[in-house]
Amino acid sequence: MLIPIERGAREPVAKQIVQYLRRAIDAGRLRPGTKLEPIRVLARELGVNRETVAAAYHELEILGLTESAVGRGTFVLARAEAAASRQAGADERGRPRAFEPVFSRRSLAATSLAAVRVDYSAPADAVHLERLIPDASLVPDEEFRKALNRALRKGGPALYDYGDPRGVERLRRALVERLAGSGIECAVEDVLITAGSTQGFAVAVQLFCDPGDAVAVESPTYPWALGALRSFGLRVVPVPMDEHGLDLDRLDAVLGRGDVRLLYTMPSFQNPTGISTTVAHRRQLLDIAATHGVPILEDDFEKDLRVRGRGAPPLRALDHYGGVVYLGTFSKALFPAVRVGWLVAPRRVADAAATVKRLIDITTSPLLQAGLAQFLSEGSYERHLRNAVRVVEERLAAAEKALTAHLPPGSRFTMPEGGYLVWITLPEAIDSATLLADARRAGVVYAPGQIFFPDEQPSSACRLSLAHATPNEIERGIRILGQVARAALPRGRARRDARASAGIHL
Amino acid sequence: MLIPIERGAREPVAKQIVQYLRRAIDAGRLRPGTKLEPIRVLARELGVNRETVAAAYHELEILGLTESAVGRGTFVLARAEAAASRQAGADERGRPRAFEPVFSRRSLAATSLAAVRVDYSAPADAVHLERLIPDASLVPDEEFRKALNRALRKGGPALYDYGDPRGVERLRRALVERLAGSGIECAVEDVLITAGSTQGFAVAVQLFCDPGDAVAVESPTYPWALGALRSFGLRVVPVPMDEHGLDLDRLDAVLGRGDVRLLYTMPSFQNPTGISTTVAHRRQLLDIAATHGVPILEDDFEKDLRVRGRGAPPLRALDHYGGVVYLGTFSKALFPAVRVGWLVAPRRVADAAATVKRLIDITTSPLLQAGLAQFLSEGSYERHLRNAVRVVEERLAAAEKALTAHLPPGSRFTMPEGGYLVWITLPEAIDSATLLADARRAGVVYAPGQIFFPDEQPSSACRLSLAHATPNEIERGIRILGQVARAALPRGRARRDARASAGIHL
Repeated sequence: MLIPIERGAREPVAKQIVQYLRRAIDAGRLRPGTKLEPIRVLARELGVNRETVAAAYHELEILGLTESAVGRGTFVLARAEAAASRQAGADERGRPRAFEPVFSRRSLAATSLAAVRVDYSAPADAVHLERLIPDASLVPDEEFRKALNRALRKGGPALYDYGDPRGVERLRRALVERLAGSGIECAVEDVLITAGSTQGFAVAVQLFCDPGDAVAVESPTYPWALGALRSFGLRVVPVPMDEHGLDLDRLDAVLGRGDVRLLYTMPSFQNPTGISTTVAHRRQLLDIAATHGVPILEDDFEKDLRVRGRGAPPLRALDHYGGVVYLGTFSKALFPAVRVGWLVAPRRVADAAATVKRLIDITTSPLLQAGLAQFLSEGSYERHLRNAVRVVEERLAAAEKALTAHLPPGSRFTMPEGGYLVWITLPEAIDSATLLADARRAGVVYAPGQIFFPDEQPSSACRLSLAHATPNEIERGIRILGQVARAALPRGRARRDARASAGIHL
Repeated sequence: MLIPIERGAREPVAKQIVQYLRRAIDAGRLRPGTKLEPIRVLARELGVNRETVAAAYHELEILGLTESAVGRGTFVLARAEAAASRQAGADERGRPRAFEPVFSRRSLAATSLAAVRVDYSAPADAVHLERLIPDASLVPDEEFRKALNRALRKGGPALYDYGDPRGVERLRRALVERLAGSGIECAVEDVLITAGSTQGFAVAVQLFCDPGDAVAVESPTYPWALGALRSFGLRVVPVPMDEHGLDLDRLDAVLGRGDVRLLYTMPSFQNPTGISTTVAHRRQLLDIAATHGVPILEDDFEKDLRVRGRGAPPLRALDHYGGVVYLGTFSKALFPAVRVGWLVAPRRVADAAATVKRLIDITTSPLLQAGLAQFLSEGSYERHLRNAVRVVEERLAAAEKALTAHLPPGSRFTMPEGGYLVWITLPEAIDSATLLADARRAGVVYAPGQIFFPDEQPSSACRLSLAHATPNEIERGIRILGQVARAALPRGRARRDARASAGIHL
């Protein structure tokens, strides 16, 4: 496709691409079913960056002209002609021309996220290893309902006001006590209750970063964090992970550039790799960040689901320069519907975070916070955790056994010390995003590696989550995954890989 | 103060101002108790805009060097020397230098908001006419607790998942029915549940606006909306209000500039003026927005608290060009702690809004949504409203009587058709922000007009909210306000004003 791009024109480049393709579809030059050029190819041809093309493709999709799917590409839709003519046409009854929403670049960036476009649909009996959400068997719904009831009765009408914008004091006090158990010393005033750690992330990032600023992230990392960063107009600077966590030499180089305003990291049970770093690694990381004066956003989303060992203290506990902002959540260890997380930071930072949150949603519902405080004070959370950790342990054991038995030679994986995530790397010849279609049909769903990499590079890796599957389901799902992966391998390939990786990997 | 500013330097101007003043304080050239030059004066002297100076003054406050209060100014603090030396000093034990948070421009803009700095503290028996939050007597806490209980029992563990990111379907369905009653036709898919309308505002604005874009707002308007817009890096373009609502000629001129991406308006019970516009005004406003292709963000925060008349349909109901995004909330008519609002928009816009919300906090707690759906379905909300509207009516009547009796001559006010807000304009010689200190001491608290104007101009107007005061308290509060206002008037002045406004105003 030779799309004429006028640089420096009033119309942004992405918009020019949209208009050109829209006219082409409208005029029938691009017929229904036509596959558009891959984003990277078109970006190279036009000499523009990939995000520009991705934004244009995404707008075409919003306009109802195309359809995209990770691992397949972008196709002109059959219903495109109708949609195009409907939107271009004037109103025959003399009413004002229909409003054509022009979305902001940041919302286009957000909605063009690869993770949004993955198709996870599957037969009814498929095993779901993509969902990082505790399943119904893990939810102490009755215990929570009763605790909530008691809290609301006790609180009375006063609880129905906004309350302290930082959150219900009783809950923050309980969190301060729990945090002390892992070495984090903080006061009640240093804790801000957020709507899950997702909101804590949004608040902390916006506290330090203006549009155009750069944020360093692990590569691979949590895809929705990438989407949020892009929607805030920030540049994402990936720092590669190795088996020990962030590559610290690379991190030092990246932070040394001077333009990075924040480092986002998950030192325990990293999403998606499941890696937990050592105390020594953490101290080095802190030294590097302190040297460059860069604050750290530490996301400790699965803290309470540790199965083995004591684990290294959080960065916030080891923080010797006052630069660590810590995020926690009840979504993984308890259940997501409560929408309660917490941000812990040095006082001045916590103060500013509270003001930023004020502008986003004022405060998180005091009703559920009071319920949680009650649930914690009654010992119900600890009881629940004992059960949850046992379940995680069983599931991890089932996964390890099944992965060892069923993955094709040339595959690799490392079992985490807790949490629900196992990151597996299939033989190089496999693109896990492409394989997903086969896997879904065969009865197993997983998260393809591609969506975790900031540059969305094709990947043979994938993330399995055990949050939504029993040990039997895990065994069956991994068996099916092994079968479809073997079937996708070029003949003869499996044997070569087996030799190369013998004794180390699978 | 002659602060040397180097334009085009790497260091932003606000930062240069901070550093200069910090050194001056450190060196003792600015002594404790010194009043810094007013923002507008220093801005004029330095030839920079006011927000730059405001951001610098705010950072000084964060650094613990100064203290600001609306209507008083900014003062060097007594503890400043200690704070300055503590922060400048290196660590004597060889530990890494303490991290000095460098906050983003947007969070500084947010926290430098005038509304943040108003001092509302008052004696224990003071009448609070500043809080727009229903008081305890209006909260149906027991009915809600029971409804919530039933909903949680019925929902079981499935309710504890994230659920549909747009919100609990049962609640959205109930809202669709209620909205139909005021002429808004929409499908369940067009409704997005948000964490109060504050979050709906943040989502809608970011959907259409990138940093640097302009948003048109009413002047005066809701101050926290101004703070949010600034924190998103947006330019605020004020459009003046007259007694009928937005000045439509001025609106036409502003939208004609071509750079305004969104109009934010509250056509019913406007905050702070209480004005509700006519159907004719609404249709004209829609025509203007449609002509310029500008979307409208309609905030209908007190919809269910109408006391008199049927009121004009919402803009969303009259929308002939598909450009209106509608926000509603339970915070004012029910109670804020539930943190549930709704955004209604044409499907494509609602779809994009759901994706943007996904990145901010994933979804709003399904637990409370289910409780609200139950509360609505049992008729409890309608029962509650009947009581609430009666209370609003009593309070408005008490306010009207007291205002007529106690305000000094030269004052003006208009009673709203419902809701809690009454906007009064005191005689011109009075600055209501300055007067607030006297009023608080004397036993009445209100919101000074200055905080509602985008340019923070001093104002003789102030906003009274009746949400948190009984009829007796309202009478007492307004009586005290009348007394302090009279006392603040220059001698002889009251008589002149009385002549000028006789027969029309008070």
